[in-house]
Amino acid sequence: MINHSRIQHPLLRQKIMSAEAAAALIQNGDHVGMSGFTGAAYPKLIPQALAKRIEQANQGSNTFSIGLWTGASTAPELDGALAKVGGMNMRLPYQSDPTCRARINAGLMDYVDLHLSHVAQFVWFGFLGKLNVAVIEVAGILPDGRLIPSTSVGNNKTWLDQADKVILEVNSHQSAALEGMHDIYYGTERPPYRKPIPMEHTGDRIGDTYLRVDLNKIVAIVETDCPDRNTEFTAPDEQSERIAEHILTFFAQEVALGRMPPNLLPLQSGVGNIANAVLAGLNRGPFENLSGFTEVLQDGMLDMIKSGKMSMASATALSFSPAANQEFLDHLDFYKERIILRPQEISNHPELIRRLGVIAMNGMLEADIYGNVNSTHVMGTRIMNGIGGSGDFARNAYVSMFMTPSTAKGGTISCIVPMVSHVDHTEHDVQIIVTEQGLADLRGLAPRHRAELIIQRCAHPDYRPALLDYVQRAQDSAKAGHGGMHTPHILDEALSWHSRYEREGQMLPKL
Amino acid sequence: MINHSRIQHPLLRQKIMSAEAAAALIQNGDHVGMSGFTGAAYPKLIPQALAKRIEQANQGSNTFSIGLWTGASTAPELDGALAKVGGMNMRLPYQSDPTCRARINAGLMDYVDLHLSHVAQFVWFGFLGKLNVAVIEVAGILPDGRLIPSTSVGNNKTWLDQADKVILEVNSHQSAALEGMHDIYYGTERPPYRKPIPMEHTGDRIGDTYLRVDLNKIVAIVETDCPDRNTEFTAPDEQSERIAEHILTFFAQEVALGRMPPNLLPLQSGVGNIANAVLAGLNRGPFENLSGFTEVLQDGMLDMIKSGKMSMASATALSFSPAANQEFLDHLDFYKERIILRPQEISNHPELIRRLGVIAMNGMLEADIYGNVNSTHVMGTRIMNGIGGSGDFARNAYVSMFMTPSTAKGGTISCIVPMVSHVDHTEHDVQIIVTEQGLADLRGLAPRHRAELIIQRCAHPDYRPALLDYVQRAQDSAKAGHGGMHTPHILDEALSWHSRYEREGQMLPKL
Repeated sequence: MINHSRIQHPLLRQKIMSAEAAAALIQNGDHVGMSGFTGAAYPKLIPQALAKRIEQANQGSNTFSIGLWTGASTAPELDGALAKVGGMNMRLPYQSDPTCRARINAGLMDYVDLHLSHVAQFVWFGFLGKLNVAVIEVAGILPDGRLIPSTSVGNNKTWLDQADKVILEVNSHQSAALEGMHDIYYGTERPPYRKPIPMEHTGDRIGDTYLRVDLNKIVAIVETDCPDRNTEFTAPDEQSERIAEHILTFFAQEVALGRMPPNLLPLQSGVGNIANAVLAGLNRGPFENLSGFTEVLQDGMLDMIKSGKMSMASATALSFSPAANQEFLDHLDFYKERIILRPQEISNHPELIRRLGVIAMNGMLEADIYGNVNSTHVMGTRIMNGIGGSGDFARNAYVSMFMTPSTAKGGTISCIVPMVSHVDHTEHDVQIIVTEQGLADLRGLAPRHRAELIIQRCAHPDYRPALLDYVQRAQDSAKAGHGGMHTPHILDEALSWHSRYEREGQMLPKL
Repeated sequence: MINHSRIQHPLLRQKIMSAEAAAALIQNGDHVGMSGFTGAAYPKLIPQALAKRIEQANQGSNTFSIGLWTGASTAPELDGALAKVGGMNMRLPYQSDPTCRARINAGLMDYVDLHLSHVAQFVWFGFLGKLNVAVIEVAGILPDGRLIPSTSVGNNKTWLDQADKVILEVNSHQSAALEGMHDIYYGTERPPYRKPIPMEHTGDRIGDTYLRVDLNKIVAIVETDCPDRNTEFTAPDEQSERIAEHILTFFAQEVALGRMPPNLLPLQSGVGNIANAVLAGLNRGPFENLSGFTEVLQDGMLDMIKSGKMSMASATALSFSPAANQEFLDHLDFYKERIILRPQEISNHPELIRRLGVIAMNGMLEADIYGNVNSTHVMGTRIMNGIGGSGDFARNAYVSMFMTPSTAKGGTISCIVPMVSHVDHTEHDVQIIVTEQGLADLRGLAPRHRAELIIQRCAHPDYRPALLDYVQRAQDSAKAGHGGMHTPHILDEALSWHSRYEREGQMLPKL
């Protein structure tokens, strides 16, 4: 039920209207910056009202569409609804919606896949054009007009600041007790006026607890009472458990060698089941007093905070299963002292990731024998989701780890290949590769030695002979004068595994 | 002639010995950290003495070799001498020596190609193993044992700090007036003890003017009187001039649109003739009060300081032609107020590059139609030089620009290709591509639109039809269900241009 007391500014109450009326304020061709990060705090009603409007407008001729900017992925009610009616001509900086993905890969809409830490500043710099409208979910409005942020911050500060018009969704389904959990840093400037960001530990508060907005820009307020997309996690499978074990063994070794402190360093963890398995492993493991500096705080990290293994976590979004969400809401005062939500230009800031010495753990689609990683493109041409924050973290991390099961699609795809079909993380940025088979520590190794180790430790046994054969023939070819021995390849064959999969449905020749 | 007064510490004078005696203190299998960055301040005599010793030791059987770590590239007397006798089993983080390159590409030595900003911290972290010996050129030793740095700083602070044994070359050929030019920041720590780096402008001094060393670690001092490798620059050719013009036009547009301030932002400029042509263009252009935040300060930037166009430049190394070197020496007091030399972990630090808003301009070997850049590998397998600092700057820059002539090797190679044969800078990190044909501004564009623009603006007209044909067929293929329209490719053909060049000596089929 809508709680009308969430809007405490009397004049702003006069701006309350229906989602349909608010959606009518968005024009064809607008750049629209919406809230939303991994299913948290996206606007719930206006995008669906806008989709209906677009559907009607486009009956017969496809003429109404917007450019949609967000924090990251959202939900079926936003990306899904707009994609289904062809309502987006352009999308940035990240998406994971099936309909949206299908339209991108069919060439029906543009997708600009950006490092998440780049987005806000690119808008400030004017690199992406004018932001016409911001549509932001908040948990409430104070009497003086300041905004209580919702379950993600993302690019909301920037959208509110840069947009000509602002539309708010005030969602009374979000807990009023979120107030005070956020840390909105207003110290960013454009060069040459930038200052050091005064953060030295994940728990340092450096900003305000509220979002600011020029009240004159607010053209509509819509009251909602809708839950976030809280998706059930599947229990970790055996592969994820084994990946987690390899990582825990690696951490123990690094601590023993004095290369990591006993309480490790701030953990960044990508989204998904493998990431959750790793965190579950840490929750059972020997390390105490851990901290998190990550993009999205999921069930695994919440469990660690609950158990006391993790004392502080910084993120830009919460993304819980329904059960974890209930645990979070039931003990919000406890969690509010141990979780800080920040803008994504801060959660993903290279300066902070480097300074804090973040341990970056991200999933990937595939790695090649020389340590290049593909996070985004299925068989080189189809976007999966996007690079997200993985590049922000990998390049600047203390140690940069990428993980995947060694095979996919029932074993027909090897996730260790001769050459990746698209590169998102270069050989210079990848230090550790982990599959359920094992962990390859690439630090200080030249390419040929990386290949030996990755094949031996990470490739599935079914694919090792073919990979070793490729390496041997590539080296033979180099020795025969066709190419160099620094990074031996057979160029005509390097992408043939992907090509065969496209033709025959499996990477290796049928026997 | 050697000036013995350069060593003012009385006890250290007792450590003076011949280069041969000093070289005898280096053991087989040692990791040796030497000074040297782009032909500046590398040790001049000890590496040659070491090479002779290795040559004798290895007569018949190849048993004596070292792992060599430096700042970046050095000179024939270092990399060349050691490579010729097979004296290196491993080299990092950057090299450009022909003999060294040939041995790497023949598989006779390992090469670990690192981001230059990663090197020092990877050693502090223990990721690259123990540093046994440091061999560092300095310009002098103070009575209290502090060291006057020479014409580059590179990783010298780290080598002096981390090595078990220290050997100094005191080069009295270097001007005594270098004293006071350097800024050695001693505020770095390992995480979790890192603090913000207190720099807000390129000219801020944040450290000491001298290098420190534990005097008990000094095992040898060798006096030298040898010049740096000061290489003649060739006059900018027409292609370089045209690339420079495109960049100047771009800057003027960005200033007019309010996306850059009238005095631009701190300039980073890669090494070589194109970079020098761009700087020469800026020296003739309308922009005043410029600044530099770069790795290597070359003739072009020196000219800008001389003319008053540039008021302050920060770098880690000086690399001048003989004429520019003379100009520098003749007016050292003038330049000392306008040039600061820093450790390379500071000159290339992501935190500072992002904060200052550096405009990054780097050369490349090739770019592909989607904006991926290859800076290191010839035809995908042979190392050229290395990534150097280009990744440090590109990822964190205000705007990241890559430049190359549109063709190479007499037109047989197109530097714009369907797919690069190796990726050092991903589509997410490349904003501007420039050739003599024109400039492609990729900001905010989805892959297919990047392809249109790169082919139209940057590809050589001789290659445009083949590139357009590839794009058309890749899109047709995607529409027919073979791959996606986000980044259309024909996987069996994507690297065929490189493969054909290897076989036939040209990228396009013979007519």
